[in-house]
Amino acid sequence: MDAEFLNKLLRGDKLAATRAITAVENSAPSGEEILRAIYRHTGKAYRVGITGPPGAGKSTVVNKLARLYRQQEMHVGIIAVDPTSPFTGGALLGDRIRMTDVELDEGVFVRSMASRGSPGGLSRKTADVADVLDASGSDVVLLETVGVGQSELDVAAAADTTVVVLVPESGDSIQAMKAGLMEIADLFVVNKSDRPGADQAVTAIRTVLQFRSERDGWNADIVKSIANEGKGIDEIAGSIDRHRKYLEETGRLLEKRGRRIVNRIRELVGEQLRVDFWNEGRLERMRQEVQHVIERRRTPFDVVEDLLREFRQS
Amino acid sequence: MDAEFLNKLLRGDKLAATRAITAVENSAPSGEEILRAIYRHTGKAYRVGITGPPGAGKSTVVNKLARLYRQQEMHVGIIAVDPTSPFTGGALLGDRIRMTDVELDEGVFVRSMASRGSPGGLSRKTADVADVLDASGSDVVLLETVGVGQSELDVAAAADTTVVVLVPESGDSIQAMKAGLMEIADLFVVNKSDRPGADQAVTAIRTVLQFRSERDGWNADIVKSIANEGKGIDEIAGSIDRHRKYLEETGRLLEKRGRRIVNRIRELVGEQLRVDFWNEGRLERMRQEVQHVIERRRTPFDVVEDLLREFRQS
Repeated sequence: MDAEFLNKLLRGDKLAATRAITAVENSAPSGEEILRAIYRHTGKAYRVGITGPPGAGKSTVVNKLARLYRQQEMHVGIIAVDPTSPFTGGALLGDRIRMTDVELDEGVFVRSMASRGSPGGLSRKTADVADVLDASGSDVVLLETVGVGQSELDVAAAADTTVVVLVPESGDSIQAMKAGLMEIADLFVVNKSDRPGADQAVTAIRTVLQFRSERDGWNADIVKSIANEGKGIDEIAGSIDRHRKYLEETGRLLEKRGRRIVNRIRELVGEQLRVDFWNEGRLERMRQEVQHVIERRRTPFDVVEDLLREFRQS
Repeated sequence: MDAEFLNKLLRGDKLAATRAITAVENSAPSGEEILRAIYRHTGKAYRVGITGPPGAGKSTVVNKLARLYRQQEMHVGIIAVDPTSPFTGGALLGDRIRMTDVELDEGVFVRSMASRGSPGGLSRKTADVADVLDASGSDVVLLETVGVGQSELDVAAAADTTVVVLVPESGDSIQAMKAGLMEIADLFVVNKSDRPGADQAVTAIRTVLQFRSERDGWNADIVKSIANEGKGIDEIAGSIDRHRKYLEETGRLLEKRGRRIVNRIRELVGEQLRVDFWNEGRLERMRQEVQHVIERRRTPFDVVEDLLREFRQS
């Protein structure tokens, strides 16, 4: 990797950042090289995950938060994870708010990522892309994803603070539908709160929170907003900030980031062990043995034992 | 493991099956021993996954299917995966249909499994429990899970035929909400089809299916049912049967089961490699290095390289 490219990237050049992210996303060898080179320039950006059911207004919240941070002279990175379907190949949400206005801002970098085709784990990819934005000068990175599957857990794993955006109508189904969403939130936003049922939704969230095991001793705030009118955005930013201060003062931010590094190391080790183990010879041997297992002449356990014995001796 | 226990298990003794499943679920050493011992007695039961959104009536469909199979003198195993919340600890669905009547039938074995606490993969656990039921005489195993996260993919991975149960109201959100569900189905059931919108739901499913990549050359059926009145159950069973015959005649059932064995072997290898690698010494070394990574004096990649070099030399 040439020094010129690295310099540009670290100075916040958008074209360089785009190229770097593409390499990282495609798991290209140059991607790892870039991540290694920029690593010591990371750790400055605060990472906020924003998730919730389709139609809750996540993109609007992200858009307005980005503008607020820009008013505070911060550089903002936005990673929008679009869960795409492997068979339609298209974006899941037709009503995605266009981010054109913030995208035109020099201090904002927006990147869309597909959640499909990330067998290595979306969590890992999201964290890597956030690293690139971090090194290239973002003060805050907003990670947005729709909470309908696994991707919200991946994003929460990559975030320092996780914001769950709901709507008043979520009230009924809060407990039933998305237990996962309830558990990852450091802050709840009841958006579109001019619609009926906003207060009931707040109550429903509060009830569920009583049963939630303590999260680092932090009590999640519940904020009402009407994001498309800009209402409640200050409160959301304020609550994110309080959570950040809390994590910093208690040392829990370092703990959290330490755990992230541990997970990262474990993933990288696991990947490399797999590559080492499954060479052509062992793959071929397994293919032959599968026939015996289908015929019930051997068990999968026997095959694994044989393969491991040979690996340990090699 | 004593021969008496194994004999009882293979003869279909329910108490023995319960004990075996508990050992398997808890990943007890005796669980692996049991799975090894019974393996050559497996492969006879046909495995049907049944999934869909909360409230679609999956349990009723399972219940009625089980009765139908009993009328055909088949032995039926039912595995109901309850996605429980790590923080409430309770079952997700309050309106779970009690299966008491089928449970009292000598020829039916019902087992509930929690989806939580399966870091080794629910797919694996479900397949293991299905193996126990298979060896202990089930002709068909019904795997039921609510499709709100990852668990429906796990169940689909363990099933020969996957049935997705929807309701007429699912029509609007079929494309938006659960692309995952749409992709795993070999058969769609529009249950509660006496409600308005059933035909539109069928049309919506048909539209989405046009965009679906070919699944083993099979065109998924769409069946309307009113399960609590017993309507449509024959058609569901008939469609499952057609899919089974299709898989058998084209050799795709063996292919499918072969792929499952391959995945199983890979999982077992991965687990064992992790255990071998992460001994106390390497864990301790990693903990020390994490501090250096947090301080940005090293990158995770450097740490992984060091650890792997030492592992390869050892």
